[in-house]
Amino acid sequence: MNQENTRILKGDICYSIDKNTLITVEDGYLVCENGTSSGVFPRLPEMYAGLPVEDYSGKLITPGLTDLHMHAPQYAFRGFKMDLELLDWLNSSAFPEEARYEDPDYARDAYSIFVQDLKKSVNTRACLFATLHLPATRILMDLLEESGMETFVGKVNMDRNCPDYLRETDGDASADATIAWLEETAGAYSHVRPILTPRFIPACSDRLMERLADIQRAWHLPLQSHLSENPEEIAWVQELAPQSRFYGDAYDRFGLFGGEVPTIMAHCVHCPPEEVELMKERGVYIAHCPQSNANLTSGAAPVRRFLDQDMRVGLGSDIAGGTVLSIFRAMAEAIQTSKLRARLTGDGLKPITMEEAFFMGTKGGGSFFGKVGSFEEGYEADAIVLDESRIPHPQKLTVKERLERFLYLSGDDWVLHKYVKGRRLF
Amino acid sequence: MNQENTRILKGDICYSIDKNTLITVEDGYLVCENGTSSGVFPRLPEMYAGLPVEDYSGKLITPGLTDLHMHAPQYAFRGFKMDLELLDWLNSSAFPEEARYEDPDYARDAYSIFVQDLKKSVNTRACLFATLHLPATRILMDLLEESGMETFVGKVNMDRNCPDYLRETDGDASADATIAWLEETAGAYSHVRPILTPRFIPACSDRLMERLADIQRAWHLPLQSHLSENPEEIAWVQELAPQSRFYGDAYDRFGLFGGEVPTIMAHCVHCPPEEVELMKERGVYIAHCPQSNANLTSGAAPVRRFLDQDMRVGLGSDIAGGTVLSIFRAMAEAIQTSKLRARLTGDGLKPITMEEAFFMGTKGGGSFFGKVGSFEEGYEADAIVLDESRIPHPQKLTVKERLERFLYLSGDDWVLHKYVKGRRLF
Repeated sequence: MNQENTRILKGDICYSIDKNTLITVEDGYLVCENGTSSGVFPRLPEMYAGLPVEDYSGKLITPGLTDLHMHAPQYAFRGFKMDLELLDWLNSSAFPEEARYEDPDYARDAYSIFVQDLKKSVNTRACLFATLHLPATRILMDLLEESGMETFVGKVNMDRNCPDYLRETDGDASADATIAWLEETAGAYSHVRPILTPRFIPACSDRLMERLADIQRAWHLPLQSHLSENPEEIAWVQELAPQSRFYGDAYDRFGLFGGEVPTIMAHCVHCPPEEVELMKERGVYIAHCPQSNANLTSGAAPVRRFLDQDMRVGLGSDIAGGTVLSIFRAMAEAIQTSKLRARLTGDGLKPITMEEAFFMGTKGGGSFFGKVGSFEEGYEADAIVLDESRIPHPQKLTVKERLERFLYLSGDDWVLHKYVKGRRLF
Repeated sequence: MNQENTRILKGDICYSIDKNTLITVEDGYLVCENGTSSGVFPRLPEMYAGLPVEDYSGKLITPGLTDLHMHAPQYAFRGFKMDLELLDWLNSSAFPEEARYEDPDYARDAYSIFVQDLKKSVNTRACLFATLHLPATRILMDLLEESGMETFVGKVNMDRNCPDYLRETDGDASADATIAWLEETAGAYSHVRPILTPRFIPACSDRLMERLADIQRAWHLPLQSHLSENPEEIAWVQELAPQSRFYGDAYDRFGLFGGEVPTIMAHCVHCPPEEVELMKERGVYIAHCPQSNANLTSGAAPVRRFLDQDMRVGLGSDIAGGTVLSIFRAMAEAIQTSKLRARLTGDGLKPITMEEAFFMGTKGGGSFFGKVGSFEEGYEADAIVLDESRIPHPQKLTVKERLERFLYLSGDDWVLHKYVKGRRLF
């Protein structure tokens, strides 16, 4: 029995079993043995009587949240130059700012702020884009490892259609740099794993994509990228890859669209039916990023359709298209934008419920990491104890009401204690 | 020279001149004499050398924000039961919760939490719905007066189509209670003013509306209500007032749709062109409440159209249809929903800019209170010193970038100091 990750948490416990079923247990017990949940109990079973109890009575306890899509270097410039659409925003804000990470000193300053805030946040898992720079990416990985969170980090590949100051010379140079990065970091971390990260089709040559497919086969790496975010971008992909039937097909031609290895595609706002069908077939994860899709005038993804087909959907902050780390906020925004979508398009897709939003932000996205995002028996015990002290209220609320309220009202760091795989981070 | 409200504030100052013109003065001086701005200066003019300077160098200073529409009793139940549309939400959440305010003890508890949070917030002015209960409304007014903010408060009128437990017996009873409330509170407050508050057409009988028109004439009171929020509600108004050409006309038939006395109509999401025309003619204030309109699946108001016609538009939190007090957040959400509207409807209305959003939340809504919401000479000096300490950043930002970032990232109470008419609240 490992003392570090074996314990019982007592409090008002909430977790999802499936997208329609939210379990709430008032004054219950989450039993965690060797980093794994043994279940949640309204009364403590005799057999666990010897385990240490951490008593958070009266406080909400939920699974840690998973951010399926965000750009670590963009944390430094979230929230300004937002009056632009995707491609203009990339050119005038994202690219020049990301270029700063060529300087390791800047990278260390910026990533330190980011990792500190991520650690204090309600999220316990994240899939991160870094930049194309190797030293900066190492710095990010070192900082994340130290934080104790579980993350995937991708050195970004981009070798065309980007400004000279932020572009790899060609597909081979980009792929070779990726191999160097993988070799350099192999075995170096316990909590940080590499993920292949071609920026998006417009920024990746065919040669690069071919080489990434080779690397994926050799290294068995998952992959993350962007898909069907903005109409202008989609038209551009069509121009660049005229032989592709749709955007996703431009990845699929290289065997980089899910299947055997887990794959995340961010956004999926404007997917044609064939693309949705292929994503479903290949088990591609959809990272739904509602705030970013609003900020960059992309639109509102038809999440109802994805959920109803039992596709794999999680939530992403998409820092800095989105501005807010907390995946609770992304849950609220997923609901809000689905309501606006329903009203403004009249397409008959029902808004997302609170249960579905909570599911996406916990078990939905968490499953990319394995058995993560729930407190059912056998799940890795990521747990957060929430800080409701800043929202006093005059009447009695149910546990579910308190949780729902937390989605709408809480800030990034309204968390008192955080556990990852049963280990207490703070 | 009044010592209490005469001072100079030094810092990085931002304010609107008009909806397209945001002024930023780095390391500037806001001169405030007897509660009124004498202007903002990059260097301090000789003539003000004798005034006391409060040095907030390096900190952002903006006008206090105005919340043009919110329900004070609903602060206690913001953020739950949000998976409902307007009329269902009213019946299952708002009405039963508002009925609690019949109990003055509950009202005192709930309103104390609300006023404390409002005081700590970035807003300095607000137009508030109370409930129909006189003692509770007095308690709210007492607490607001003590807070030092400038507010309009309305005892709510509602005598039909509401549950028995939250309905006045008839139009005369409701009107008489209003007169009693006005007489009782006349001259009692320096910072709190009464405002007529018929809940909305479905809840107000013709007799009540006639009597309110009499009261308005006798007391010269401004008025606030709701307009064209939700399609179901609009259809209901059409049923209840079949002789009205549109929703606003149902107010106008009683002379309660702007003109001589300032009038606020909240929402205006689905106004037909004739209604917009009449609002413009009568100078009706539009309280745009973007988050509430998303939460209650109402839609996204065509704010671009209102702004381009130079109509009077401010922002509202619409607690608890909306969940967040900060009008900075409402600015960001006005931009975000205008972008979603543009993308999802394809109606060609351009998204709202940051300058326009900031204008609406300061000078636009502030003008309901007079010369409020700017630092131009002659404006009442409401000022807030912002707390950016929770968003460290690694690079140099312009004052405008910092302000924009604050719209997207700040919480309700990220404010260090607050001044109303030159008086320091904290």
